[in-house]
Amino acid sequence: MDPKLASLKFDANGLIPAIVQDSSSGEVLMMAWMNREALEKTLQTGKTHFFSRSRNKLWLKGETSGHVQHVKSLSVDCDADVLLVKVAQVGAACHEGYYSCFFRQFQPGEQWKITGRKVFEPERVYGG
Amino acid sequence: MDPKLASLKFDANGLIPAIVQDSSSGEVLMMAWMNREALEKTLQTGKTHFFSRSRNKLWLKGETSGHVQHVKSLSVDCDADVLLVKVAQVGAACHEGYYSCFFRQFQPGEQWKITGRKVFEPERVYGG
Repeated sequence: MDPKLASLKFDANGLIPAIVQDSSSGEVLMMAWMNREALEKTLQTGKTHFFSRSRNKLWLKGETSGHVQHVKSLSVDCDADVLLVKVAQVGAACHEGYYSCFFRQFQPGEQWKITGRKVFEPERVYGG
Repeated sequence: MDPKLASLKFDANGLIPAIVQDSSSGEVLMMAWMNREALEKTLQTGKTHFFSRSRNKLWLKGETSGHVQHVKSLSVDCDADVLLVKVAQVGAACHEGYYSCFFRQFQPGEQWKITGRKVFEPERVYGG
């Protein structure tokens, strides 16, 4: 691994949060977790890889849907414990079919309001 | 607490990551953690509050520096376990004086490259 990356602070489980942002629109697409291997694979391949805590395994974002994310830049915060990855998103980031996973907005006294734009029908991509 | 917020998934420590984004420029400013109380205070006051894991206490962002964040919107991701808070930032988000905490970018074969813009000198704001 690149020696600069040795200074990153992974948590007790060996993970670091990675915020994924659309490099052209600036839209925040998702947040997921990387371990060292996911970060290495991301840098080696230029496509985001994460570590799934629920499935306990490495995953290539888009491995099922084809909705991969091409990495444009990788930044780190002042405490070296959060990553910001700017990407070109193929298709959409969210498995629910929205371009961004943050498609619901809080509004006092109402339901969560859908503010995101839907790009695909999940059952057509993942089967259903 | 607003009943909609009961569906949020706080982790085993009662915390949820909150990504803070500049509502006008789209710049990602920081990521910090909220517990239920921090989220309630954020919604009540319209200024971001977080829970500090190192100091084990609630804090108002900007309580020392005056660099508060006025909340413009609050969104949640598909898994209901990450928040996205859009804000109007007073001053700068980073205690190191940069507008965003993500002021260092990875470049292969070089040092971390400073890509963020410095807004203030920390020793003038926090003493030194």
